[in-house]
This record gives sequence, structure tokens and C-alpha cells, in this order.
Amino acid sequence: MTLNGKRAIQDDYADDYAWCYGCGRLNEAGLQLRTVWEGEQTVTIYTPRKEHTAIPGFVYGGLIASIIDCHGTGSAALALHRKNGHEPGDGVEPPRFVTASLHVDFIKPTPQDIPLKAVGTVEEIHPKKWKVHTELYAGEECCVKGEVVAALMPKTMMK
Amino acid sequence: MTLNGKRAIQDDYADDYAWCYGCGRLNEAGLQLRTVWEGEQTVTIYTPRKEHTAIPGFVYGGLIASIIDCHGTGSAALALHRKNGHEPGDGVEPPRFVTASLHVDFIKPTPQDIPLKAVGTVEEIHPKKWKVHTELYAGEECCVKGEVVAALMPKTMMK
Repeated sequence: MTLNGKRAIQDDYADDYAWCYGCGRLNEAGLQLRTVWEGEQTVTIYTPRKEHTAIPGFVYGGLIASIIDCHGTGSAALALHRKNGHEPGDGVEPPRFVTASLHVDFIKPTPQDIPLKAVGTVEEIHPKKWKVHTELYAGEECCVKGEVVAALMPKTMMK
Repeated sequence: MTLNGKRAIQDDYADDYAWCYGCGRLNEAGLQLRTVWEGEQTVTIYTPRKEHTAIPGFVYGGLIASIIDCHGTGSAALALHRKNGHEPGDGVEPPRFVTASLHVDFIKPTPQDIPLKAVGTVEEIHPKKWKVHTELYAGEECCVKGEVVAALMPKTMMK
């Protein structure tokens, strides 16, 4: 499976770390978000389910926060992986990030029944800490802006 | 149904606005979060489902963001309702807030298989805009701090 013809970083996470409710490919009850490069930016596309509503007609903010969260960790993983000389699909396990902080500004209500596209710009603020600036679009309209500080998964979270 | 012996603000939302994936009592696929007063603070309690995982053993950040989000709007509704002279269950429809911004700091990984308790402090920053500071506890441990700016639902979101 590809997104915009590209392999997603989540497709290459180690099996043990592929259970995230937001972006784990092995979590069948989850959102299975997937993040790819688009030029120098990163992209995640997701169409909310019918139940992901806030007020009828508009998408639930917690779902949008989830998209921005996993788009952030996925984008940071893409970026550090590339810095290390690797791309999704080249057989090397990518780094796995977790979220240190998440900020979401809901600029306007996000309409339902349309795919949402998160577009991210990645900034290295420390070798183990990356900041991802995200704009979330419904069609042509930017409805939400978000920022994630993603940190390399600490050893205490590993098995 | 009560929480800590108290009626939740979400129990009194108008039917049209009770479909939120996070806190709508009519959304059967959702989380059905419920928020009550505890002294001068507000409380929401939720036990994550098995699938709400980040890395196995730890709760998914997007789910935590969702709890903080709906706890924020619910707390703001409780506070403005009280300011207007009302309490849940007195037969008066409470105000309905939406999220203007959401900030979440993940201080330490949140363990799974334990109820999470969000404790909020509400601050009026404008008659139509309230800030809710939230600490999220797993047992005795504060794992997450969050802040929501909640705004009265604009007329453009109403039916």
C-alpha cells in the first residue's frame, strides 16, 4: 500500500512499535495514519469516519489533534531517517519518536465528509528532538495549524 | 448515571449538540466523556480501551489530547453555567463551548490499564472565552499537563 505513490514511514516501524492507535499498521481498531514525503514537506491524509464529529457537520478536534500528533512523530522519523541516509522501503528500520508536546490552533471549523490533508515542515532543534509545524487542509482551506515537539523514544518505553 | 455522585454537564447538552465523538452522550461509537464539579475544580475520569495504545503499555497521546479537549469544553460550560446561576440537572440548558486551542505537555509516559483522572482549573479570560488548565493523573502520578482555550460555540456552527 502506498500514499501518493510513496511508501510511508509507518510501514517500516518495527513490529513491536507498530501498535499505535493513531498510526500503528498492526492496530486494526486504530486510525492507521500514514506519513510520506512530498518534496521537502511531509503529508498525511485521512478521511474522518462518520462518528468523528464535534458538532454535526464538523470534525472532532480530538481526532484532528490525533492526526497532528502522529503526523508529527511520523514526520520527525522521516526526517531523521533521511538525515541518517535512509528512505522508507530501503530495508533499514527507522527511528521511532514519541510526542513531548502538542499544540493545536483551531482556526475555523473543519467540515466533515472530505479527506483531510496534513502538511508538515520539519525542524531539527536537537539531534533527538524535532519540531514539526503542520497545516491541516480540508480541500483548499487551511482549518487548523499545529505544532509537535517529537522526541526519540526513550529506552524506558522499550520492551 | 452520575460520576462521583454528580450529574455531568454533558448530560444536559441539547440533543443537537450531544454527538461529539469525545463527550457526546448520543455518540455510541465515541468516548462519552463526562465532566463534573469537584469543589472548585472539574473532573473527568476515563479508562482507555485496550486499543488506545501508543507503544504497548502506554496510553496513546491523541486519546489523552481528546480527554483534555473535551474536559476543557465541559469545564468551561460548567463554569459559565454556574456563573449564570445554574448547576447540572436544574433543567436549564447549559452553554456549549468549542475548542479554540489545545496544548498538551506529555511529562511522562502514561501507563495503560488504569483509570485516568483529568483535574481542571477554570479561568475566565473573556465572557465568551475561558481557559482550562488540566492535570491528568494515572493513579497518584501526574503524567500530562494541558491547557484549552474554549470559546462559546459560534452561531455558524449551529443548525
